[in-house]
Amino acid sequence: MIRINSHYTKLQASYLFSDIAKRVAAFQNAHPDKEIIRLGIGDVTMPLPDACIQAMHQAVDEMADPETFRGYGPEQGYDFLREAIAREDFQARGADINAHEIFISDGAKCDTGNIQELFARDITVAIPDPVYPVYLDTNVMAGRTGAFKNGRYEGIVYLDCTAENGFVPALPETPVDLIYLCFPNNPTGTTITRNELQVWVDYARENKALILYDAAYVAFIRDDSLPQSIYEIPGARDVAIEFRSFSKTAGFTGTRCAYTVVPTTCRAFDDKGQEHDLHSLWNRRHCTKFNGVSYPIQRAAEAVYSEEGKKQCRALSDYYLHNAALVIEKMTALGFACVGGKNSPYIWVSGNRGSWELFDLLLNEAGVVCTPGAGFGRCGEGYIRISAFNSYENVAKAMQRIEKALG
Amino acid sequence: MIRINSHYTKLQASYLFSDIAKRVAAFQNAHPDKEIIRLGIGDVTMPLPDACIQAMHQAVDEMADPETFRGYGPEQGYDFLREAIAREDFQARGADINAHEIFISDGAKCDTGNIQELFARDITVAIPDPVYPVYLDTNVMAGRTGAFKNGRYEGIVYLDCTAENGFVPALPETPVDLIYLCFPNNPTGTTITRNELQVWVDYARENKALILYDAAYVAFIRDDSLPQSIYEIPGARDVAIEFRSFSKTAGFTGTRCAYTVVPTTCRAFDDKGQEHDLHSLWNRRHCTKFNGVSYPIQRAAEAVYSEEGKKQCRALSDYYLHNAALVIEKMTALGFACVGGKNSPYIWVSGNRGSWELFDLLLNEAGVVCTPGAGFGRCGEGYIRISAFNSYENVAKAMQRIEKALG
Repeated sequence: MIRINSHYTKLQASYLFSDIAKRVAAFQNAHPDKEIIRLGIGDVTMPLPDACIQAMHQAVDEMADPETFRGYGPEQGYDFLREAIAREDFQARGADINAHEIFISDGAKCDTGNIQELFARDITVAIPDPVYPVYLDTNVMAGRTGAFKNGRYEGIVYLDCTAENGFVPALPETPVDLIYLCFPNNPTGTTITRNELQVWVDYARENKALILYDAAYVAFIRDDSLPQSIYEIPGARDVAIEFRSFSKTAGFTGTRCAYTVVPTTCRAFDDKGQEHDLHSLWNRRHCTKFNGVSYPIQRAAEAVYSEEGKKQCRALSDYYLHNAALVIEKMTALGFACVGGKNSPYIWVSGNRGSWELFDLLLNEAGVVCTPGAGFGRCGEGYIRISAFNSYENVAKAMQRIEKALG
Repeated sequence: MIRINSHYTKLQASYLFSDIAKRVAAFQNAHPDKEIIRLGIGDVTMPLPDACIQAMHQAVDEMADPETFRGYGPEQGYDFLREAIAREDFQARGADINAHEIFISDGAKCDTGNIQELFARDITVAIPDPVYPVYLDTNVMAGRTGAFKNGRYEGIVYLDCTAENGFVPALPETPVDLIYLCFPNNPTGTTITRNELQVWVDYARENKALILYDAAYVAFIRDDSLPQSIYEIPGARDVAIEFRSFSKTAGFTGTRCAYTVVPTTCRAFDDKGQEHDLHSLWNRRHCTKFNGVSYPIQRAAEAVYSEEGKKQCRALSDYYLHNAALVIEKMTALGFACVGGKNSPYIWVSGNRGSWELFDLLLNEAGVVCTPGAGFGRCGEGYIRISAFNSYENVAKAMQRIEKALG
């Protein structure tokens, strides 16, 4: 008899964004004439940079010609892209990362989900709260948790991120083996300093733990004193895997390209305490269960690092940060405490009431969709996340409507 | 202490195609002036159909315009593609499959690898021998096997495919829960009749087993009495998941698009014997660990179903089948028994000696790369797989060289 992975039955009934979509659909059905402004899901709205468009057209033409056609590429990605990434995103900032340590993929969501396959089922996992739900759900699916009780899965060490600790978690009080960190943070939009990140790297080194560092929003960092990569922190090469994406950097949410850095010095241990290098393990997983990113898409990603591409991508993140500044200004004026939005496209708004209550209020009274903080974990209760991903005109209109409804 | 998934250590040292690549590289280093003809890995060589190229260009232009730009698409794929697939690949052949039962992905390799996550670790898995290595390796990684001994993993029920049974396996003698089948077969190039496939569907229904049916090579079927989809077989909707790919159908190996069919009636059971529907389970997995296929790539795949696209794709598979006919003719004349190659791009050649011996002979004496059958399993020993994926000129030249070396 074919039996299911019973851990799937522990998953909560529906994914946060599906819940939101249902409430929005219900509102739209009830008010078919009302225009909705979406500042909820973190999806970009501006077109792809012209450098990427040109590169993609050229690559498509190569696929039409038997002389330049490309079949299977290397599972890990083409060298032209891996080398550009190593040089521009790491070496240019003094981080010692080489091209062969970079694995090109079709999404940071996929990679942050798939990476946990490399680890034993009975390790202890530390996950921030609030958090991007994928970290948690994929560990539930893998059987690393017990049941869901009082808003939390048993067996997970939650790292509270609150106004009190500036949304940067303190070290765990009990030993942990695997640690998820995300900066600039989704959902809070907050950042971590070099000194704060050094504390985590030192902890991982001392405790033979591993850090999974999600830096998908790095393109929004404007404060140059902040680390962009965890590999700017001494010692991190041995204890950290980093995830990056072109989704927010270059508007690739519908185009799909990302990468994961697994340094060759990064190690884990078997049951006998013997060291194994995670680069080889991930390479094996990647080659067995993945077949590389589409060639035209990799050429588009390479164009992100051209002189024109860099300028155009910078203009994209500048545009969204300009939106974010308006959100902070208006929401603060309405009496809401805000964090994030300065080195991040997300603004984390203390709602002075329940998350879903404020979500419903903004939807029903202003026709504006945000994301209820409670959907990201227990510590998100009382907050909402406002995303700066929309046109400036729409963000301005959304703020006017919210002012009118709540002011 | 961060500990690894120890099942990875059971995996054999290297992947078949890496082994081949190493031997080829060694030969090339020793003979830098000799031109090598590759009839090994099943990678297409002809450019993409013009209909796909035009569709991709148009979609890229849409991504350049704020009015038509697309961000995140549905994880399951766009309706325009799912509907075309349901209509053309299934309903047109009398198979009762609907658009919402189709999940678009970036590769059948990924899907056949990832699907096993849905099942309990202690189910019994039946896998043909010879076989595409991914089915086996992903179950090893998941912990469903013991050690590798005498060329086989303990705990797997191997289904021998030999000349005696026409390379269509007999039903297993001990109970199994999950069954992998692949037709037209990789590596043997053989097919299965409706009656033979009905036997498996009946077995699965009677034993509450599930069939994973890999039909990636369906575009090469020319004998219309053969089933193209398992859903043409009565009763299959409840007990089978089917995998398809545009890689071989339309030359997408470097472009990346595929799909998996999970009928809503397809069920599995929990530890208490209660039914669960696999469509919901796979949907949850897909939405949590995958983010959809690139929009321009989905438009290219949609163009496969246009009138022009159908003609151009048919011309592609005709071209490779013409190559295959030449391989069968020449290898048979040299005294080798061949199967496959008539409804498949692969020819399975009985080598009259060890697989790797014939591989090395063809490489060293004729400069031709094939795939040693032993790399696909114990029953592949003594065979090689010759792939028809190359230009006709190269296939003809390869056959001349082999004639000269062995004739």
